[in-house]
Amino acid sequence: MTEHLDENEDEAFGVTETLVDEVLEAVEAGDAAQIDQLLDPLHPADIAHLIEQVDASERRDLLNVWNGIDGDILSELDDGIREEIIENLAPSQLAEAVRDLESDDVVDLVEYLDEEQQEAVLGALEGADRVVVEKALAYPEESAGRHMQVEVVQAPEHWTVGQMIDYLRSEDVELPDQFYHVILVDARIKPVAYVTLGRVLSARRDTPLRDIAEESFRTFNIEDPVGDVAHAFNHYHLISAPVVDNDDRLVGVITIDDAMILLDEEHEEDILRLAGVGEGSLTDTVIETTKQRMPWLAVNLVTAVLASGVIGLFEDAISAIVALAVLMPIVASMGGNAGTQSLTVAVRAIATRALTGSNVWRVIRRELLVGAVNGVLFAVVLGIFGFAWFGSPMLGVVLAAAMIINLVVAGLAGTGIPVILEKLGIDPALASGAFVTTMTDVVGFFAFLGLASVVLL
Amino acid sequence: MTEHLDENEDEAFGVTETLVDEVLEAVEAGDAAQIDQLLDPLHPADIAHLIEQVDASERRDLLNVWNGIDGDILSELDDGIREEIIENLAPSQLAEAVRDLESDDVVDLVEYLDEEQQEAVLGALEGADRVVVEKALAYPEESAGRHMQVEVVQAPEHWTVGQMIDYLRSEDVELPDQFYHVILVDARIKPVAYVTLGRVLSARRDTPLRDIAEESFRTFNIEDPVGDVAHAFNHYHLISAPVVDNDDRLVGVITIDDAMILLDEEHEEDILRLAGVGEGSLTDTVIETTKQRMPWLAVNLVTAVLASGVIGLFEDAISAIVALAVLMPIVASMGGNAGTQSLTVAVRAIATRALTGSNVWRVIRRELLVGAVNGVLFAVVLGIFGFAWFGSPMLGVVLAAAMIINLVVAGLAGTGIPVILEKLGIDPALASGAFVTTMTDVVGFFAFLGLASVVLL
Repeated sequence: MTEHLDENEDEAFGVTETLVDEVLEAVEAGDAAQIDQLLDPLHPADIAHLIEQVDASERRDLLNVWNGIDGDILSELDDGIREEIIENLAPSQLAEAVRDLESDDVVDLVEYLDEEQQEAVLGALEGADRVVVEKALAYPEESAGRHMQVEVVQAPEHWTVGQMIDYLRSEDVELPDQFYHVILVDARIKPVAYVTLGRVLSARRDTPLRDIAEESFRTFNIEDPVGDVAHAFNHYHLISAPVVDNDDRLVGVITIDDAMILLDEEHEEDILRLAGVGEGSLTDTVIETTKQRMPWLAVNLVTAVLASGVIGLFEDAISAIVALAVLMPIVASMGGNAGTQSLTVAVRAIATRALTGSNVWRVIRRELLVGAVNGVLFAVVLGIFGFAWFGSPMLGVVLAAAMIINLVVAGLAGTGIPVILEKLGIDPALASGAFVTTMTDVVGFFAFLGLASVVLL
Repeated sequence: MTEHLDENEDEAFGVTETLVDEVLEAVEAGDAAQIDQLLDPLHPADIAHLIEQVDASERRDLLNVWNGIDGDILSELDDGIREEIIENLAPSQLAEAVRDLESDDVVDLVEYLDEEQQEAVLGALEGADRVVVEKALAYPEESAGRHMQVEVVQAPEHWTVGQMIDYLRSEDVELPDQFYHVILVDARIKPVAYVTLGRVLSARRDTPLRDIAEESFRTFNIEDPVGDVAHAFNHYHLISAPVVDNDDRLVGVITIDDAMILLDEEHEEDILRLAGVGEGSLTDTVIETTKQRMPWLAVNLVTAVLASGVIGLFEDAISAIVALAVLMPIVASMGGNAGTQSLTVAVRAIATRALTGSNVWRVIRRELLVGAVNGVLFAVVLGIFGFAWFGSPMLGVVLAAAMIINLVVAGLAGTGIPVILEKLGIDPALASGAFVTTMTDVVGFFAFLGLASVVLL
């Protein structure tokens, strides 16, 4: 069972290239027993990983030969592949697959399925489980209520350690598979504190539970966005946190393992949005991927045309001095890069709540200064270079001046634009990039060509 | 103690703008008691957050008036600010601050301090604690050994639930503050499985611990990189994992709360490196920030000059048809954006181990196809636009052809370059951006201007 992470670069967790090849050979031979033998030792996350690694036709063949897909594997799969597989599962197979899952895993599994598939999975659940899942699905997407576990171990706040242990050890209490804390509640089932099992086990029997409660206690409302929940777990080092309804009554719990997944998803969203890829995974098809990327490229086309409109204003200058055309992309490109640097730091700081009303002006001032300092440094280098290449000292001066202007604008736009978008309720990761690079392109071309027209013609 | 996340956009966790203002007023009034009263209800993470939000001179004043800095707050601070504060703490204050910390928190605290400061902190520790910290610091940076807790609750693998509970409840066993699992070890102290406290409490006394061990069990070696550890926690949904030395003996444990912090740091590194910001936080000074950003801007300057060298080859063409200068940035910009899209998906996939030897060719093929499809679509739009603007159908054709070529190259470079860098042992997040945009700039200008020279002149 023990397993070290291998030094081998080609191994992704428990799935080696050799294993993938062996499985595909067994598929070709139609040897289900061999596949079983190869996949049985693997963690469901690794089996899912393997299923994602092979291509669509290999995947179809694999699932025709081998019917070992269970709920745990389904839970681990990428959304797209999961839909594809659920479509091909017989209703009885699907029913069996989901029956063993905890309710919150079923919710994760079905929330993005289309209605027909969702109905098929829900139909496979027993009455009580189905009610729990349907209730969770009634909460808004990306809310704490949607992602909480409803199985909670709770105790009256006035209990002692001894009472707690006797309760947990009594035969007729059914405890969840995984729990690390007991939540203390008052008479109206409002959570007031929580106690870790480690502390329960290491304290004397007559110790009141309140005395060994954790200092860092936060509750979430069912409607709190999961992004906030994930960042709060990270900020306050929470291990688990109760979720309450609008009457402040305990209705569920979010644990750190769920929070870690949520935080990872938040990061994925930020990094992909910053690059103009709304969502997207390696398992998406060419058509899906093309569709995801097209909107941002379309936005970029508009902004690029805008920038070339600016260049168009200076056609006469370029006709007269063709060196301007050669040098102008340098100014724009440096501005774009500096703007992206400021932007990324700002977007990340907004996501981690480090950039706030208290320090925004200081940060903008810093970015302006950084832009100015780097602007001057690179202006000197580029100015000398421009002079050396084209033999015109004034061309060097124009190049240098445009560089300074554009790097200052980059610092300002890179910080100011995400802050403004955030205030307007727009995700700064999603939209800032287009605005910032438009700004640096337009300003870069205008400053350089404009100054050149005035000074050199 | 209970606290909801506020709906107020301006609140970053427990720190409101109003609170920051009130604290600063109390600082100006030199009223230490008032500051105590304001900060006392806050979590150490929030106090650290507040200290980071004010500017350097306000921070100095705050710490002159108020001497409430303790080890927990120091642990939460950004590296830069922490160094600044430790420099200004009296040795006795520092000694008191670190004495209450767990050994792994002390390691986190001191690992990036300069030698003199490190010595000052270590000097404040008692003998045994100091040995533990020094041993951890002897492991490589970013290794599992550096980040593990040495306090571990272990038990012989043949024990029953009853024996375990009696052991945990016996008066003379000293248990760590936070623990969620018991690690089962064999006679040579090699970890063989782990059992959660929840299962210990919910099983019958005569149940062998082996029977209720978790299925998903992974051990790490002291030298495993923390990035791998963090991703394994996320992939396998681990809650804690034993760390072993080179003889496979249990020497420590990494828990999910540490893993979550490590995962967050990995993400931060990736997102900042992709943007050409090696490291960097909002609390860095102008000089630090300028230094961090300059290297990437310098690289970009070189690549931008390279691209303008390509333009320089076609000066005659531009002199003859100035429209070429107006339109050429569009082709380069579209290529740069498409390349960044492919690149970001690839870097993220490499980080999460989703892109492997088994699927790399399929992914590259997909990216080429996506580039071709988007290339054709935007080529049509842009071709018509170029024709409409400048009245030359052949100019439209050239523009369209260059667009297709550049978007295909963008897909190829955006995926291929990070894969090659990864194979060479270079972090693809760090270096890919420069290579990809150089590629799309050079190819964009060359394809457009080259085709134009051949077709239009």
